[in-house]
Amino acid sequence: MALIVQKYGGSSVADAEKIKNVACRIAKTKEEGNQVVVVVSAMGDTTDELIRMAHQVSQQPQERELDVLLFTGEVISSTLLAMALGSLGCKAVSLTGAQAGIQTDSTYSRARILRVDPKRTVNELAEDNIVIVAGFQGVTSNMDITTLGRGGSDTTAVALAASLNADVCQIYTDVEGVYTADPRLVPEASKLDKIGYEEMLEMASYGAKVIHPRAVELGQLYNMPILVASSFSDRPGTIICKEASMEVKNKVRGIAHDTDVAKITVVGVPDHPGIAAAIFEPLAKANISVDTIVQNASIENITDLTFTVARSDLNKVMSIVEPVAKSVGGKQCVTDCTLAKVSIIGAGMQNTPGYAARMFHALSEQGINIQLITTSEIRITCIISEDRVKDAVRALHKAFELEIA
Amino acid sequence: MALIVQKYGGSSVADAEKIKNVACRIAKTKEEGNQVVVVVSAMGDTTDELIRMAHQVSQQPQERELDVLLFTGEVISSTLLAMALGSLGCKAVSLTGAQAGIQTDSTYSRARILRVDPKRTVNELAEDNIVIVAGFQGVTSNMDITTLGRGGSDTTAVALAASLNADVCQIYTDVEGVYTADPRLVPEASKLDKIGYEEMLEMASYGAKVIHPRAVELGQLYNMPILVASSFSDRPGTIICKEASMEVKNKVRGIAHDTDVAKITVVGVPDHPGIAAAIFEPLAKANISVDTIVQNASIENITDLTFTVARSDLNKVMSIVEPVAKSVGGKQCVTDCTLAKVSIIGAGMQNTPGYAARMFHALSEQGINIQLITTSEIRITCIISEDRVKDAVRALHKAFELEIA
Repeated sequence: MALIVQKYGGSSVADAEKIKNVACRIAKTKEEGNQVVVVVSAMGDTTDELIRMAHQVSQQPQERELDVLLFTGEVISSTLLAMALGSLGCKAVSLTGAQAGIQTDSTYSRARILRVDPKRTVNELAEDNIVIVAGFQGVTSNMDITTLGRGGSDTTAVALAASLNADVCQIYTDVEGVYTADPRLVPEASKLDKIGYEEMLEMASYGAKVIHPRAVELGQLYNMPILVASSFSDRPGTIICKEASMEVKNKVRGIAHDTDVAKITVVGVPDHPGIAAAIFEPLAKANISVDTIVQNASIENITDLTFTVARSDLNKVMSIVEPVAKSVGGKQCVTDCTLAKVSIIGAGMQNTPGYAARMFHALSEQGINIQLITTSEIRITCIISEDRVKDAVRALHKAFELEIA
Repeated sequence: MALIVQKYGGSSVADAEKIKNVACRIAKTKEEGNQVVVVVSAMGDTTDELIRMAHQVSQQPQERELDVLLFTGEVISSTLLAMALGSLGCKAVSLTGAQAGIQTDSTYSRARILRVDPKRTVNELAEDNIVIVAGFQGVTSNMDITTLGRGGSDTTAVALAASLNADVCQIYTDVEGVYTADPRLVPEASKLDKIGYEEMLEMASYGAKVIHPRAVELGQLYNMPILVASSFSDRPGTIICKEASMEVKNKVRGIAHDTDVAKITVVGVPDHPGIAAAIFEPLAKANISVDTIVQNASIENITDLTFTVARSDLNKVMSIVEPVAKSVGGKQCVTDCTLAKVSIIGAGMQNTPGYAARMFHALSEQGINIQLITTSEIRITCIISEDRVKDAVRALHKAFELEIA
């Protein structure tokens, strides 16, 4: 008997019919002799609808209140799913994040899970119940309700799976797995059967939206195998686990891209120790993820500092950075929202020369200009013009022979 | 500085505009120097909408799950109200029933409040917050979510007021107070400024829908003054308190009526000890309120047993009573759903003869046939044909000179 944690996203439970379909899938997993814990997102557009309601009564709703409001979305889908299972003759019980022991810090709207107390879930499983847990939410030590922010339900699922020592965490979504590139851009992209945690982390961080990097990180930390598959088909999906395979023939596993890029350049700052800290510390305090950071070579002790953030954060970033830049003597702040990232990713690239050159060559052949470059041990990212993304991804997919992955 | 508990019903918070209006009323109460705790119902039709969703996925949703689903309705309205107050510059915080310490038994869909632990509410008041509590809900000792059933939010408000030792509990609704009769039936009905708990209890139990009898009972138990008033006007409303006044000139205070009446007659049961118990014990176990019970004089040790219940309970009642009636030798069960109750109510009636006669005379003058009669110390109820209710209420209102109350 295996213990399986399944997660269903909002599009998988968007209406009553879809909820019933998901209930059938869960019932089947249970009938096959498994213990089943299910994490569920809010139905379809519920979260957006709740946010709309909030903005009808307040221009700037309190973050604590907004979290309580949004929490109801997952509570509703979890109870409906438990009811649908009940009508199939299955014993099922829904739990809120609090009841399921998802304990978080009190950073409303993007809380972090501190620990999971699986006692209640274990008891319900012992009673032969299927346990449906409302995703995306938790509770502070003061019993205040929190939400986990982007990728929250994925994170709930992997955290629960780890705390329950589950055999596998299955993330069901509207795509069939992890592809060598976005199939909408590259029709010949192929689905990967397996991918390592680190590779997936880079893929997810650099634009492949199938699973949130927070959830992959947690999976890696607890060595929890994660299956990503479609809730609308029975195809096998992609398994994210410790090692894809020791030696992969093609060492680039996938091409990621991300158009949610805003570039900020602080022009003419003095090249002193402490300048970068003065700029980036307040951003960290505001909980803003800064991506690529590049500092040009200094001329006469004056330099330019360039970095990228998500476009939705740009206004907030500018309100923080502009006064700081001025105070340290910067000349001006220039922004650019016409850019995108393309990345090649593969653990096999590590310690193997030539990948960067091959990437730059493929892009230059298409006449694509590279604005910034950033690398990790298993990833090379180029920032290019957004309107060339499709050409870039296709060219790279071809250059690294991924159509035969 | 007074501590005021206010309750707003679903029609008072039916949309964003109404929520903002309610927020203004609350803010005003706070500005006048009071501490304010607010209990709120679900917006407009939310509860019906949630029930509809439940029935889309299951014909018979589990009661536990239905309670969790319905619980979200009041959570949503409470957070939106806290947000609307925030946008007026007021410090406000919403609490779920669990957070507000509303501890109940585990009778899902009609849980009873066992105790209220006001600690969190007291702390939030000490922080100068307006506290918005989601009505109609509580939590068991096992942390399971319950709902309180009909009149739940009224009950939450009075229980909270009692536990906080509040100065007054104000129930805001869509009527302006307690009237001598339903103004839709009797245009000359007048609003009462004051009414005693017992009189209100009889009025509420016998058809005046302004406040649920459970809440009045709790108010009486803790001697908590309850104001019933309109959330759409500033008129003074009706205060429910210990003594209306020692001597009231007109000893009938009001005429109540209720058309939600189903009559069941078990024909031809043997007149033995234990027969009534055999019939009514299973109804009590099924949590069904039986109203009037009448047993006719026995002829040759055979009698008829007649009782009334709410019409919505009739199917359930028949499924329980028919087999029992058969097993004790009853001939048949006859039902009638064309009846209604009219009652005259007044503490002053106690120990004063002549009220019953005056009531029967007024009805007979209209040619209205009385089917059953039942009395309490401060109430006389006649069961009559439903289509004569309007005539009966008007005639009684006139006979007891209530237009000049």
